[in-house]
Amino acid sequence: MPEVSPHPSFRRALVLGGARSGKSRHAEALTMAAGPAPWVYIATAEAGDDEMRARIAHHRERRGAGWHTIEAPLDLCGALSGAADAGSSVLVDCLTLWLANLMAAGRDLEAEQAALVDTLVTVSQTRPVVLVSNEVGLGIVPDNALARAFRDAAGRLNQAVAAACDHAVFMAAGLPMVLKTAG
Amino acid sequence: MPEVSPHPSFRRALVLGGARSGKSRHAEALTMAAGPAPWVYIATAEAGDDEMRARIAHHRERRGAGWHTIEAPLDLCGALSGAADAGSSVLVDCLTLWLANLMAAGRDLEAEQAALVDTLVTVSQTRPVVLVSNEVGLGIVPDNALARAFRDAAGRLNQAVAAACDHAVFMAAGLPMVLKTAG
Amino acid sequence: MPEVSPHPSFRRALVLGGARSGKSRHAEALTMAAGPAPWVYIATAEAGDDEMRARIAHHRERRGAGWHTIEAPLDLCGALSGAADAGSSVLVDCLTLWLANLMAAGRDLEAEQAALVDTLVTVSQTRPVVLVSNEVGLGIVPDNALARAFRDAAGRLNQAVAAACDHAVFMAAGLPMVLKTAG
Repeated sequence: MPEVSPHPSFRRALVLGGARSGKSRHAEALTMAAGPAPWVYIATAEAGDDEMRARIAHHRERRGAGWHTIEAPLDLCGALSGAADAGSSVLVDCLTLWLANLMAAGRDLEAEQAALVDTLVTVSQTRPVVLVSNEVGLGIVPDNALARAFRDAAGRLNQAVAAACDHAVFMAAGLPMVLKTAG
Repeated sequence: MPEVSPHPSFRRALVLGGARSGKSRHAEALTMAAGPAPWVYIATAEAGDDEMRARIAHHRERRGAGWHTIEAPLDLCGALSGAADAGSSVLVDCLTLWLANLMAAGRDLEAEQAALVDTLVTVSQTRPVVLVSNEVGLGIVPDNALARAFRDAAGRLNQAVAAACDHAVFMAAGLPMVLKTAG
Repeated sequence: MPEVSPHPSFRRALVLGGARSGKSRHAEALTMAAGPAPWVYIATAEAGDDEMRARIAHHRERRGAGWHTIEAPLDLCGALSGAADAGSSVLVDCLTLWLANLMAAGRDLEAEQAALVDTLVTVSQTRPVVLVSNEVGLGIVPDNALARAFRDAAGRLNQAVAAACDHAVFMAAGLPMVLKTAG
């Protein structure tokens, strides 16, 4: 378990990083440090194939007891609003899969992003919220237009959420680098 | 607009980051903080397709008044040398597209890189210069040799320019992490 | 040559970064600062094609005299154990190619990773060890399953090694950002 200060003073924290960079583990530690059990885990993943099913099971096993899980592949705002009643702090894992689900469903990304930021600010008045997201824009420009549109949308979403957060870190090899901090 | 100190003491600043990481916005703020309007914007992009045209128009609209734009898809050194007369500080956006243009035109990359560093050092004696560049080497090794050659060349160019700069940041989610700083 | 303090106090250092980010150069400087010549260079690359042969030759030329080179495409633990007798400090360049070689040879990745961490801790009791590794998880999710498996394994390996190190940096444009430090 990564070391985090016992009572971080953030209201909204973004944990950004690449694949297998330790994002989820760090975000879980932040969420658990922000208040007593139970904690709310909002999962945006859908167990569509075996690879994803195995990943979800692995994460769930690691979290252990004390977590209340809500699945929200599309209605993240609804889940966040409802989450305040289910625990002392809330973890959203992750924004990148939520974005992929929104795109696959043909949703209006700008409207969804604005609604998320609004809901995040409201919910975090009473419960600290930690959000996990992937940085996907640091490779070669993808060949296909959909992948380019996705990484552009992911970058915009990360910027909007980071601007609304008072704590943000960039993970590499399981270790956080501070982007901004609530102290 | 990101917060930057009103009179940063840099002469040459590199703003590095991924796609949609807030590089241009941060670099514009640095350039505007370095001196009074007008500022010089050296654009290396060519509006070759609709996607690029839309991106250029979006950036131009955000910058607003006070900017003098020079297009320099290949002759960046000439544009930099001429830019000193057109404004109090200079923004180059971006080195990665300039590199792609050089490769497409079959230019000698080592010679161009050396000339850029020389010109940068000379021009920045009288006008602060901010350069935007993409980090493209943090994904899986690309399948095709041209993409590998491009990311190698981009990494070499970023290293050479960063070594010549007195301020450098790595952007993620719109937020800068300091690589080196002029204080 | 990048500036590093003359006698860094690390026992195990990880230098992480993207392609052409200056990883090897920084790692060489750390290794040389950790003790007097000769230094041990453990190369995991195999000169399988012209591109790799040219890269190996380029690195070897830059290192110059004072280095004792051991090639270890698969048996990194054996090379590390033997290295202690051949120099005052040891550089492993790089873990990512070692992982690719292990996967191509069908080795048990978890067992190899655990053995590496054990050997690293043992060897570093008497000789500082510097390890170079690539971050490959910050681009778009790769299309093919093998590439996804590789970046997952690379991320896990980087996390395990970083946890065992007392100094770790993330390189960009030739400049280090501190992930953790021994002071």
